[in-house]
Amino acid sequence: MKSVVIEQPGQLNIAQRNVPQPDPGEVRVKVKYASICGSDVHIWHGHNPFARYPRVIGHEFFGIIDAVGAGVDPARLDTRVVVDPVVSCGHCYPCSIGRPNVCSELQVIGVHRDGGFSEFALVPDANAWALPDSIEDRVASLVEPFTIAANICAFLQPQPQDIALVFGAGPMGLTAIQVLKGVYGVERVIVADRIDERLQMARDNGADLALNNTETPLATQLNGVQPTLIIDAACHPDIFAEAAALASPAGRIGLLGFSGAPCTITQQSLTSKELSVFTSRLNSHRFPHVIRWMAEGKIAPHKLITHYIPLNEIERAMTLFEKDPRACCKVILEI
Amino acid sequence: MKSVVIEQPGQLNIAQRNVPQPDPGEVRVKVKYASICGSDVHIWHGHNPFARYPRVIGHEFFGIIDAVGAGVDPARLDTRVVVDPVVSCGHCYPCSIGRPNVCSELQVIGVHRDGGFSEFALVPDANAWALPDSIEDRVASLVEPFTIAANICAFLQPQPQDIALVFGAGPMGLTAIQVLKGVYGVERVIVADRIDERLQMARDNGADLALNNTETPLATQLNGVQPTLIIDAACHPDIFAEAAALASPAGRIGLLGFSGAPCTITQQSLTSKELSVFTSRLNSHRFPHVIRWMAEGKIAPHKLITHYIPLNEIERAMTLFEKDPRACCKVILEI
Repeated sequence: MKSVVIEQPGQLNIAQRNVPQPDPGEVRVKVKYASICGSDVHIWHGHNPFARYPRVIGHEFFGIIDAVGAGVDPARLDTRVVVDPVVSCGHCYPCSIGRPNVCSELQVIGVHRDGGFSEFALVPDANAWALPDSIEDRVASLVEPFTIAANICAFLQPQPQDIALVFGAGPMGLTAIQVLKGVYGVERVIVADRIDERLQMARDNGADLALNNTETPLATQLNGVQPTLIIDAACHPDIFAEAAALASPAGRIGLLGFSGAPCTITQQSLTSKELSVFTSRLNSHRFPHVIRWMAEGKIAPHKLITHYIPLNEIERAMTLFEKDPRACCKVILEI
Repeated sequence: MKSVVIEQPGQLNIAQRNVPQPDPGEVRVKVKYASICGSDVHIWHGHNPFARYPRVIGHEFFGIIDAVGAGVDPARLDTRVVVDPVVSCGHCYPCSIGRPNVCSELQVIGVHRDGGFSEFALVPDANAWALPDSIEDRVASLVEPFTIAANICAFLQPQPQDIALVFGAGPMGLTAIQVLKGVYGVERVIVADRIDERLQMARDNGADLALNNTETPLATQLNGVQPTLIIDAACHPDIFAEAAALASPAGRIGLLGFSGAPCTITQQSLTSKELSVFTSRLNSHRFPHVIRWMAEGKIAPHKLITHYIPLNEIERAMTLFEKDPRACCKVILEI
């Protein structure tokens, strides 16, 4: 089978490997579509501290179960599935409180173990979620990125009367906008980005107001409007302090960034408004929610997709995704 | 009547004032006992940015309703009450979601308007909470400081299996310990402070482990134990980053500090563990909870009290509270 392998940082190959056999408890997924995420690019370039090499990347993928390991119900064969990349131990403290995404022995498919940019992938049976027919093959791999938005929103508990502000109109920002509008019915969703084409995508994905903050600070453009809910999907270390300054008293801030650069904030800026700050990583048990939202038409994954590219052209696809944010949002690999 | 007035920063007087008459909707409280808080000292020294002068300080007090304004049920006369210092508009965004403590027109009794270090105080009827007989006069003013602990714990939602770490064994830390142990049944509560006498008080107030972190860093002393719930009741700007470093994955951090000094933290230190950070200011609707806890014996206010001092000796009392943390915790003024 063909698999996209990062042999070591900077070295991307399409390798020919043997089709693997599922271990007990595993299923084999014949992958049909997969989508590219920023973290795939980071592993390629050696910027993901968790990755081990060589690695088959890809953690957003859809396919059909074509083999099952011992102990797995054979009725699972031929099931259309999307795969939750979070593999957890099930017994540590985070697992015990329903937070497998920060399991003390966390394994992420496509990061710590081989992933889905491959003709076949082995995954634990419990990680393969069956899809209803109403979700098309060509958009199904986007369930996973929507679980990122679902996860931070589960912390933030958006309300219709919230004034939401989303920093960043990339894939994370756009999924957040869709979930805020389509699932939680937030009446006012404001988005800030520095690229006009991305701001247009934000509008197309449901934003009520899209602001370019390249030259004029957001505080000026908001003109006294205080967002009650803020999501940092741009992930620049300066945004935390800006979010605290802009937020309404009793506001909530959601952070998705992983920057190791120090950010400076005063506790007064948080405590005087009694702000709450939630961080979110991957997802905890959000696949069934997102699948239901997608089946019910509450979220529209096709609005994020700008390109379909064959697996053979993986390097072009990854480069396009990385270098051309004006024209490119989600790239779907056809496998 | 005698009132403790801060005429201007640094100038503390016992003034003779006329006994005031309640306006419509107000009650007059004949104050019996009041307790000193750090913020009273800050107003005295001019370190509270919200205070306006001259000001009768004091926001922790107990007394008897001895006059009622128009529209207040006369049956309220002679009621034993403690006073919630949070006066709010009732219609702004924070008020609309049950957060009057960050009301956009917030008035705090003893800060923005005259308080309870006085023979009589006028307060909105709705702020005067009736006490059951089982709560003694001499400890009743401590309902208010326990609402601070109640408020942060309402965000943190402590669970019996939590490993809690409290920074600071001053009054805020000790009330937090009591609430964690007595109300929420947290099995392991660890406390850190730099004063041995305070650490002994922490043990007396229920802490399971009290650590002096003057010389040996907490990380060393904890030896791999990762607290799942951390409260910063010491309020030093460096503690936020230390808390993030010590916390368990999926942990919650509660901040009570108001420092305007910058603190430096990386988003990675928060997001990689998916930590949540809650800040808390004053209290929102926590008086009935704390009164019930006190009546049921779940919290023991007398354990915090080290001194009873007559109102006439206010300057000695305030100085003792400020300067002698080894011997002094809560000082109750007898009025």
